[in-house]
Amino acid sequence: MNLGIKSRFWIESENEKFLGSGRVELLEKIDRLGSISKAAAEMKMAYRKAWGLIKSMNELSDKPLVIKQTGGKHGGGTVVTTEGKKAIILYKEFEEDLNFFLESRMSKLKL
Amino acid sequence: MNLGIKSRFWIESENEKFLGSGRVELLEKIDRLGSISKAAAEMKMAYRKAWGLIKSMNELSDKPLVIKQTGGKHGGGTVVTTEGKKAIILYKEFEEDLNFFLESRMSKLKL
Repeated sequence: MNLGIKSRFWIESENEKFLGSGRVELLEKIDRLGSISKAAAEMKMAYRKAWGLIKSMNELSDKPLVIKQTGGKHGGGTVVTTEGKKAIILYKEFEEDLNFFLESRMSKLKL
Repeated sequence: MNLGIKSRFWIESENEKFLGSGRVELLEKIDRLGSISKAAAEMKMAYRKAWGLIKSMNELSDKPLVIKQTGGKHGGGTVVTTEGKKAIILYKEFEEDLNFFLESRMSKLKL
């Protein structure tokens, strides 16, 4: 019989969810699109929901991951901070390491 | 900020759930109590549900993990087979290895 492993993981802070796959995807899209509403639309997520996730991440973090900039030459916009970019990398690196562990461990999975 | 990792995992066969924490706990209790109904009661699980889980595991496995024995000196009973015991060990060992990986990786988790 062919056995496989499925797993889910998320990173917590203060026993609350801080980073999961949906939150990190949202950060990446905001970084690319410069807009929470465009990012939410691409994920077929309500703006309210997206904003709630950002608020939760910003409050759990020492420094905010996403900030809104007002005014300026291009009329402002939403920006993923350096801290936010570090959070994306932290999550992705962990995910990669976990997948590597799972793949190598999977080959030993025999009943 | 203090970061932690939470994870869930399960073992699949033929893209269907084969072993998860509830299923393995059920196998362990059947092994100890010799009865599906007593095991289900300890888990506050309906007998029907427990039987469904056993049926699913038995069907996905090459050899059954749990069998009912009828008759005999002690009037029969339910037995976790050698294959079933191997399945429990397989799951537990994987869980231990994953926890070891997560703990060692967790110390590197800094934002």
